[in-house]
Amino acid sequence: MTPGAITYTRVMSRWEPNARVRLERAALDLFVERGYDATTVAEIAERAGLTKRTFFRHFTDKREVLFGGQEIMIRLLVDGIAGARGLTTPLDAIGAALEAVASVFDLDRLDVVRQRQTVIDANVELRERELLKGATLSAAMAEGFRQRGLSESVVNVAAQLGQLALHSTFVRWARPDNERKFTDLAQETLAELKAATAALDSTE
Amino acid sequence: MTPGAITYTRVMSRWEPNARVRLERAALDLFVERGYDATTVAEIAERAGLTKRTFFRHFTDKREVLFGGQEIMIRLLVDGIAGARGLTTPLDAIGAALEAVASVFDLDRLDVVRQRQTVIDANVELRERELLKGATLSAAMAEGFRQRGLSESVVNVAAQLGQLALHSTFVRWARPDNERKFTDLAQETLAELKAATAALDSTE
Repeated sequence: MTPGAITYTRVMSRWEPNARVRLERAALDLFVERGYDATTVAEIAERAGLTKRTFFRHFTDKREVLFGGQEIMIRLLVDGIAGARGLTTPLDAIGAALEAVASVFDLDRLDVVRQRQTVIDANVELRERELLKGATLSAAMAEGFRQRGLSESVVNVAAQLGQLALHSTFVRWARPDNERKFTDLAQETLAELKAATAALDSTE
Repeated sequence: MTPGAITYTRVMSRWEPNARVRLERAALDLFVERGYDATTVAEIAERAGLTKRTFFRHFTDKREVLFGGQEIMIRLLVDGIAGARGLTTPLDAIGAALEAVASVFDLDRLDVVRQRQTVIDANVELRERELLKGATLSAAMAEGFRQRGLSESVVNVAAQLGQLALHSTFVRWARPDNERKFTDLAQETLAELKAATAALDSTE
């Protein structure tokens, strides 16, 4: 190894703590500019000023840039629902789960999240993958309700509505003109969900 | 054209009324035997004793064998919900929609439906496509509720639960040991859905 190469390695290492974020931003920029299918991992690494090897230390493939971090969401949802304490109804446990995931949806991440959504909306396979993610998160909420000891039919209904509430809150939060916090929007969504649920078995 | 070729064409024409069903059965048999990805349209046509050209008169591609006929379901769901009359609650309108689609799930079709499910369960891309179908049917129910003049939050909740009820009824109906009619199972599912919905806002 030449001294030059060693210096290069050191510079790369010094940057490493930001590598994941830089790769994510580079990937999203390229996905928007050239389209998801036309972008290669080599181009993402180059745009980020990093190597392909570094890319593969952080992501399995380019799709994981868009769909990574799901395990964290799953954990937060399961624990948020299973752990909700007090005089809790299933709908209030959904509220607790939305509180729990709010940390993932920080306003600092809003630009990245909006860019991600633009990329997904433009590609039919990515939209199908996004639906699968929705189903996975709904299954996570079902697991949380199951841990509360609810009957299987209540588990299924509550998980379905939990996923709907999460999705509605997310859509409101990611809207181009939104500046409000995820938790505020979550409370609003939950109030609407309660009113809508009460109307389900009343004559119109 | 030789006389023999003319006869052949006549024989093919005489069979045409059953062509769609024969192609579907041949395709499903092959998907189960060889896997979905490994099966070609030429093989399906050959197994059915028909030509590729006949195949393409009935289906756009082999995927449509599994996902065709969605327009009929959409129409039945929209009209079933929008058209439900009497002292109707949103949950009863879901019951009306399940009644409306029961004609699609005739016991004569049970073998075909089970085979289709085996094929889909074995292939990740087909499972994602099946989720998309679920989302489409949920959107159809939302359209039905919108036509009833309900608020958008009730529309979304009701459509989500309608899709859940349709899916649960379908899963019960398609189970290997089931011999009961779709409508009977639908009534059972609806009763459970009502009980579960009532439990959503009560302390556990």
